[in-house]
Amino acid sequence: MTLIDGKAVSEQVKKEIAAEVADIVAKGGKRPHLAAILVGHDGGSETYVAAKVKACEVCGFKSTLIRYESDVTEEELLAKVRELNADADVDGFIVQLPLPPHISEQKVIETIDYRKDVDGFHPINVGRLSIGLPCYISATPNGIMELLRRYQIDTRGKKCVILGRSNIVGKPMAMLMMQKAVPGDATVTVCHSRSKDLVRECQEADILIAAMGQPNFVKADMVKEGAVVIDVGTTRVPDAFKKSGFKLTGDVKFDEVAPKCSYITPVPGGVGPMTIVSLMKNTLLAGKKAIY
Amino acid sequence: MTLIDGKAVSEQVKKEIAAEVADIVAKGGKRPHLAAILVGHDGGSETYVAAKVKACEVCGFKSTLIRYESDVTEEELLAKVRELNADADVDGFIVQLPLPPHISEQKVIETIDYRKDVDGFHPINVGRLSIGLPCYISATPNGIMELLRRYQIDTRGKKCVILGRSNIVGKPMAMLMMQKAVPGDATVTVCHSRSKDLVRECQEADILIAAMGQPNFVKADMVKEGAVVIDVGTTRVPDAFKKSGFKLTGDVKFDEVAPKCSYITPVPGGVGPMTIVSLMKNTLLAGKKAIY
Repeated sequence: MTLIDGKAVSEQVKKEIAAEVADIVAKGGKRPHLAAILVGHDGGSETYVAAKVKACEVCGFKSTLIRYESDVTEEELLAKVRELNADADVDGFIVQLPLPPHISEQKVIETIDYRKDVDGFHPINVGRLSIGLPCYISATPNGIMELLRRYQIDTRGKKCVILGRSNIVGKPMAMLMMQKAVPGDATVTVCHSRSKDLVRECQEADILIAAMGQPNFVKADMVKEGAVVIDVGTTRVPDAFKKSGFKLTGDVKFDEVAPKCSYITPVPGGVGPMTIVSLMKNTLLAGKKAIY
Repeated sequence: MTLIDGKAVSEQVKKEIAAEVADIVAKGGKRPHLAAILVGHDGGSETYVAAKVKACEVCGFKSTLIRYESDVTEEELLAKVRELNADADVDGFIVQLPLPPHISEQKVIETIDYRKDVDGFHPINVGRLSIGLPCYISATPNGIMELLRRYQIDTRGKKCVILGRSNIVGKPMAMLMMQKAVPGDATVTVCHSRSKDLVRECQEADILIAAMGQPNFVKADMVKEGAVVIDVGTTRVPDAFKKSGFKLTGDVKFDEVAPKCSYITPVPGGVGPMTIVSLMKNTLLAGKKAIY
């Protein structure tokens, strides 16, 4: 069994990005600039945005954090989005989700210029991903593709089962795994809460990607001997022994599943660190105007 | 075994559309207007466009056919697309594919205003379909959904296997079948030319949608007793006994598969007629400005 070390890969990718940025800047080019809008003080969002700002530093990007209290109006937020759209110095930007309930996330996403949508949430980027055109690929699926690539995991013709049909993980992951590419070319099955034969599908999977957000959902008897298991779950399960008061828990019961796997990602330290690295990769692409 | 009569359903849907159009016009509203651009004289394209124009008549739509010889330049064609984008009288329009090799189909598709893209090929419509937002759904998948709906075929939690990963059938079909909706909520597997266990996947399918374009590919031993089989194939197989010189042939070996099915679509007369009806439905939506 090989443990997929997302932390190590993410450090390596960040080093590669930093080297490229140094090269661009040395040649008189523009330093890529990522802006992030954070609304309110949600604990998870604060942590993610702080990590993104830090990753920008490591990669040699310029970053700008714009904060609003949670009573900001939708119109104020949309005005800021339009301002960033028009700001030639900002190569890409994100609006950290979730947003307060009085603000339409979909409206905010669709207001972002798709050419600066480094989260890859705008319908144009989602559509281009589906069609197989160059685009900003959403972070978690792109991070998983990078892990498969770096560990040279063969996906061609294999049965890939994805648990979860979310817009930001399950669906784009399915599109990427079925595309004519390496990694890709897999037979892709998407299971979800309504699936009747979910357990049997899992048992047949050569590659199992769990993204349901249900802690310890995947048990040993659901996994085929030699399978590749990718755990996207990051549920905060209360844990009195932790200083933070919670333990990040994956969708896979790691201790019992790991011995059966050829490859498996841990939680934390698997897919998580790759997600932020994907954002960095998109920001570099945006800085280079490589896609649009 | 129930034969799914796409021809009858398509006639019924056209009648419903015609009634709604008559009502709109009686109330002083605008008659929906579909324009079609046809380049060259490809036999299949001529047939399809003629059928679309005729369907417009039946539905009470205004239609405009714009023809170019196959030596039209890309710039001329794009200029016409922009003209139609700006023409307030045209509610929706299509550019019949395929186009001659010197013209980029993707460029043409992306030049069409997505609000008039009644073929549903523009990345914005593809992306919105994936996310689950209102959009123009591409014709063949939408026609299949309509058949499932009209025959009240239960899809929830069922295993749906789609053969083929094309941008206009396989991928959007997968997105529709996995969405939280009726029909939908299925466990969706997409197989293709690289799939290793394609036969076994087919054997497990409650609903099998064949869209590979390989005549008679699906044999009886690949189909589960009681399955629903939807045949999207329409390959023109040479046939000296036909006046046209060919026989439209599906991806399913109908004679041997049909007895095992609970429902099956024939070729011709199954999915085919529904495809044009889907275009009519999108044109009605465009006329009513129901989506954008």
